[in-house]
Amino acid sequence: MSMAEAVRTAMAHATEALLTADREICERVITRDAEVDDLHRRVEERVYDTLARQSPVATDLRLVITGIQIAADLERMGDLAEHVAKTALRRYPAPAVPAELREVITSMGSVADRMAGKVGLVLTTQDATLGAELETDDDVMDDLQRRLFSILLHKDWRYGAEAAIDCALLGRFYERYADHAVNAGQQVVYLVTGETAETTEPPGVEPA
Amino acid sequence: MSMAEAVRTAMAHATEALLTADREICERVITRDAEVDDLHRRVEERVYDTLARQSPVATDLRLVITGIQIAADLERMGDLAEHVAKTALRRYPAPAVPAELREVITSMGSVADRMAGKVGLVLTTQDATLGAELETDDDVMDDLQRRLFSILLHKDWRYGAEAAIDCALLGRFYERYADHAVNAGQQVVYLVTGETAETTEPPGVEPA
Repeated sequence: MSMAEAVRTAMAHATEALLTADREICERVITRDAEVDDLHRRVEERVYDTLARQSPVATDLRLVITGIQIAADLERMGDLAEHVAKTALRRYPAPAVPAELREVITSMGSVADRMAGKVGLVLTTQDATLGAELETDDDVMDDLQRRLFSILLHKDWRYGAEAAIDCALLGRFYERYADHAVNAGQQVVYLVTGETAETTEPPGVEPA
Repeated sequence: MSMAEAVRTAMAHATEALLTADREICERVITRDAEVDDLHRRVEERVYDTLARQSPVATDLRLVITGIQIAADLERMGDLAEHVAKTALRRYPAPAVPAELREVITSMGSVADRMAGKVGLVLTTQDATLGAELETDDDVMDDLQRRLFSILLHKDWRYGAEAAIDCALLGRFYERYADHAVNAGQQVVYLVTGETAETTEPPGVEPA
């Protein structure tokens, strides 16, 4: 739960910093990613410890190991928020996102925030419906990424190749963040329903 | 071992298809990724099965669980090879890589191939030296990605924003492939030495 909250906050702050070119917030997101990494290590240690001490079986065993897999997805979501902050920082004091893309990036930030919130909820409630909702949210994220690429590749694009590359990578960071949220949710659904989780990257979106 | 071999072959073929604009090879890489996903599921199932039947403890327990984590890295390496093939296919029959970038992409392909080969070897030999070598290889990959971006962002770039985006994403696919190879190697080192594995993305390279 702490990891899910931390990576949700990280991406919310990274998006804010990206849209306002706020150096301090960028640096805070980057610094605080170490806390997420630390939580990740603690989850792993506790899993090994639990396995060694309590030798859980059946459902309990699956629950404990799922913990490792969810923590890996959350840790990666933290990295992706950090990448967004680093992209903003590299362009500072200039804004990394041209006016034409502010709306779509704002929407990607909102969807990412909603998804990270649902991952936290799924972890508490183990509600498989929420897990399924994450897939619908991911479709929205994929649509947004398609919209982003259509703007980048439009003949009116006037910010050059460097800004186009930055924004394409930003799009990919949000899209991957959403994919990991889906994966984390699916792990919980798998646990509850026993149905095979899709561990591959969702169909997603190809640029262009 | 089968997964490591499969994702090594996948990236080798994807690079070949990318550089020769070979549609058939692209399609084969994409189709065969399902086999990697299938192997991934089989690893997971066998891990759960082993845990349930044999209740391993201590080192054995760690070994079995490490299997899940390595399989997740390998599965992702397969996805990244598939992404390279899809990028080539999207531009077909045109080549996705302009002449100026052929050399650097060829080198990235070679480094990726060497790294995937070492992951396979580490799995068989559990040789921690090879695990450490993977980090040096990853530094080479990061240098190559820096070189790629310096070409993309050079004032003489004459292929427009779309090709720049494609090539930036290609660079990222190879760089991430290398990161996952390092992670897989570090899991083995952790197992052998008991030293904490770095589970975060290696410092890597930021575009530009």
